[in-house]
Amino acid sequence: MDEIIVIEHHKPRLRSPILIEGLPGVGNVGKLAAEHLVDELGAVKFLTMQSKHLPPQVLVGDNGVLRLVDNQMHYYIRKGKGNRDIVFLTGDYQGITPEGQYELSYRALQALEKHRVSRIFTLGGYGVGRIIEKPRVLGAATSPELVEEMKGHGVVFSKGEPGSGIIGASGLLLGLAAHWKIPGVCLMGETSGYFVDPNSARMVLEVLVSILGLKIGFSALEQKAQQIERLTTQFKEAEKAMADSRAEDLRYIG
Amino acid sequence: MDEIIVIEHHKPRLRSPILIEGLPGVGNVGKLAAEHLVDELGAVKFLTMQSKHLPPQVLVGDNGVLRLVDNQMHYYIRKGKGNRDIVFLTGDYQGITPEGQYELSYRALQALEKHRVSRIFTLGGYGVGRIIEKPRVLGAATSPELVEEMKGHGVVFSKGEPGSGIIGASGLLLGLAAHWKIPGVCLMGETSGYFVDPNSARMVLEVLVSILGLKIGFSALEQKAQQIERLTTQFKEAEKAMADSRAEDLRYIG
Amino acid sequence: MDEIIVIEHHKPRLRSPILIEGLPGVGNVGKLAAEHLVDELGAVKFLTMQSKHLPPQVLVGDNGVLRLVDNQMHYYIRKGKGNRDIVFLTGDYQGITPEGQYELSYRALQALEKHRVSRIFTLGGYGVGRIIEKPRVLGAATSPELVEEMKGHGVVFSKGEPGSGIIGASGLLLGLAAHWKIPGVCLMGETSGYFVDPNSARMVLEVLVSILGLKIGFSALEQKAQQIERLTTQFKEAEKAMADSRAEDLRYIG
Amino acid sequence: MDEIIVIEHHKPRLRSPILIEGLPGVGNVGKLAAEHLVDELGAVKFLTMQSKHLPPQVLVGDNGVLRLVDNQMHYYIRKGKGNRDIVFLTGDYQGITPEGQYELSYRALQALEKHRVSRIFTLGGYGVGRIIEKPRVLGAATSPELVEEMKGHGVVFSKGEPGSGIIGASGLLLGLAAHWKIPGVCLMGETSGYFVDPNSARMVLEVLVSILGLKIGFSALEQKAQQIERLTTQFKEAEKAMADSRAEDLRYIG
Repeated sequence: MDEIIVIEHHKPRLRSPILIEGLPGVGNVGKLAAEHLVDELGAVKFLTMQSKHLPPQVLVGDNGVLRLVDNQMHYYIRKGKGNRDIVFLTGDYQGITPEGQYELSYRALQALEKHRVSRIFTLGGYGVGRIIEKPRVLGAATSPELVEEMKGHGVVFSKGEPGSGIIGASGLLLGLAAHWKIPGVCLMGETSGYFVDPNSARMVLEVLVSILGLKIGFSALEQKAQQIERLTTQFKEAEKAMADSRAEDLRYIG
Repeated sequence: MDEIIVIEHHKPRLRSPILIEGLPGVGNVGKLAAEHLVDELGAVKFLTMQSKHLPPQVLVGDNGVLRLVDNQMHYYIRKGKGNRDIVFLTGDYQGITPEGQYELSYRALQALEKHRVSRIFTLGGYGVGRIIEKPRVLGAATSPELVEEMKGHGVVFSKGEPGSGIIGASGLLLGLAAHWKIPGVCLMGETSGYFVDPNSARMVLEVLVSILGLKIGFSALEQKAQQIERLTTQFKEAEKAMADSRAEDLRYIG
Repeated sequence: MDEIIVIEHHKPRLRSPILIEGLPGVGNVGKLAAEHLVDELGAVKFLTMQSKHLPPQVLVGDNGVLRLVDNQMHYYIRKGKGNRDIVFLTGDYQGITPEGQYELSYRALQALEKHRVSRIFTLGGYGVGRIIEKPRVLGAATSPELVEEMKGHGVVFSKGEPGSGIIGASGLLLGLAAHWKIPGVCLMGETSGYFVDPNSARMVLEVLVSILGLKIGFSALEQKAQQIERLTTQFKEAEKAMADSRAEDLRYIG
Repeated sequence: MDEIIVIEHHKPRLRSPILIEGLPGVGNVGKLAAEHLVDELGAVKFLTMQSKHLPPQVLVGDNGVLRLVDNQMHYYIRKGKGNRDIVFLTGDYQGITPEGQYELSYRALQALEKHRVSRIFTLGGYGVGRIIEKPRVLGAATSPELVEEMKGHGVVFSKGEPGSGIIGASGLLLGLAAHWKIPGVCLMGETSGYFVDPNSARMVLEVLVSILGLKIGFSALEQKAQQIERLTTQFKEAEKAMADSRAEDLRYIG
């Protein structure tokens, strides 16, 4: 099979779209924020990526219907002549190996080539290991000019934070975007790193909608967070059972 | 070498066959059930898949003759004009990496393309971490219609079970089958997850034969379970010895 | 780079050669036995396989000169009209992943295709977890006829031993040889599994030279064993140091 | 995406250049030494290698600007008619799998093919597990002649050191260079292996500049070591946090 299977549900015509990424990660901050935006704006799914770099797993909905885990893209057409449209990249998982992470990020950018993305915002959490009352929104960008522009929107650029750089899709998409000459910014909400953090996601979103000139509500975010928290607990229990059984089976592999 | 070597022993002509999968997994429920059906129906092996995604291992029979580990397909021609034939997918192991699991499931579906599979049943165990007296048979399906149909056969669809979705071939075959527009169902017998469970396998089989209108005996099932249990124990001991020795050798790899 | 780089130093003309494999494994029994035969017979190296499936390592000789780790083939031309020549497959390591093990075994058989190998003997250790005074030589073969033939040479075929089958090149070469219709036998010397075991290697060799009608001395074997023991200790110390430092570096990979 | 993306910033014309490698490793001795030389000589970056065999990570500079982790080559044109120019191979990481290490080393040599490298020096640390006051510079080379030549420059060739050979790029580049018939030497500074070691790097550099007839200062080396030490500590903390969170997420993968 292909490493990544790309299924196009629609072929929208987009005007120099802005790409917003929010995949699972620290505190699920990016995923929470991006999915909330998709819901609030009523963005339309137009592309699905399945891949052997994702877990070998189907998810089962409350109605008993299953679907393969994936990464998805939604689009949102903005009203007004000069406005750039928006594309969202979200999904169930990030690639499960370093190689898979590279492949998935690269393929996402490749799939968007024809739409000529004009800017990328990747959203994530910045784990600090302690409870944060007022999360800052930290940033990193692809050029000094963009750093300055973001500072004007309240994004914090703090020397030595994050000291280890950015790991995963939020970093790779920006790093690889240079091959398409697309500028971009990573927005990271401070979070403890211990649980799903809707508060941090909200801080990131408030900065983002101010930059983009969007208007959205936030009431559904808290609900969504509770729902994710519940699912996560269930997942972990079942995954643990599965891992224990797999660990048994595969012990001889070393 | 090819990632997967497909060897066709026969080229049967099959009528819109139903695919039944039972590979090793939790409680070996799926493997037990599917292999029991193969034996009871006298199904004929027609295809072998060898792969570098399976363990690098040969098995030695009681007569001292060895064979490479593999996945196999058997077919069973049903009497009667309107009846659909059956194909079984069984084997020694599932793929040993996530990538390998995708490849093996995809290749199995590809190999059956010309037979135009009409429906898939994947069989597995649902580990609950405690001894179960009367195992339920849980289900998940590719469409709401199929969910309803299965409920009529006593399959339980329970919101939030399995919470983590379905991992491995039983999930992937159904998730990937969408590319061939094949509908399907996963039948999961409740099991502790601590040992090979013929009782759970029997519950799954009773539902399945009722759906398919087959008649089989069950006396050999208990024996088969004991045989698998014995082999598994031997495997694990030797595998452990091997793993220990390999861990030694490869320690510097990290 | 190619997955496996095959370098042919000579192009010998061989008469239906017998392939004898002895790579590192339990007790280094196979490696010890095969390398002793190479030395005693003065077999000539004619083929080197380098591969990214082997460790990323060079070995440094006592003279300070380094060489990349590899697998090698030697040949030995037997006198006499009806006699089949011999090819040896030895090396520094086996493949370090399951996939790598498949690739290396398959490629070795492919490289020998033109020589039309007539039979394969793979040599290994059978770890029993306790000190063995008089190691038996256990066997497994590709056909019942070959099992009978080997019994005549004192090879023990014992139901349920090895219960886990044979893992690594000694198994794979025989399992994959079916694609070239080459029959073969695995000879396994009992060994504790705790250290390099020249005594077990000698038992295997005595059976093998009786089968092949060869005459060799054994005095160098004991010396070689002592030398390997010493090297192994040095390796492990250095590897441990390296592993500790790498574990540090790569901790973030998870 | 390609396994390795090679970006050529300049196309210098080089005279039989000498390749000097210093990538991260034990005590970061090689990296410290090579990067110090690059800085002292004002060598010019002409080639960048990005790869899915490197961590999926971007680094963030003090100015908030990010860049993808990579391996880099710099060149230095030497004055004087008979002098050979110098190419440096440095970078943020080595390949994170054995396969990745092979691919990156092979690709680096391939990228330099047209420049006809005349000799390779790979620089590294030799971890001895205790604090060293006066680090020796140990060597290994591709031929006995080169061993003799190096002894004349004070390089120590000590039987059984390093007992485990050389793991990683410093070994592979020399082992694979045989395919291009390029001779080479590995220079290893003794180091405890517990921390970044500028003292060991200086010993290696003093030998190297004596061999090459270069003149450089050493004052910046201690500063550079402190800087790397600080970065490494920050990296490790953040990486640990990330690894912990990833371990959580991926627990079910086994």
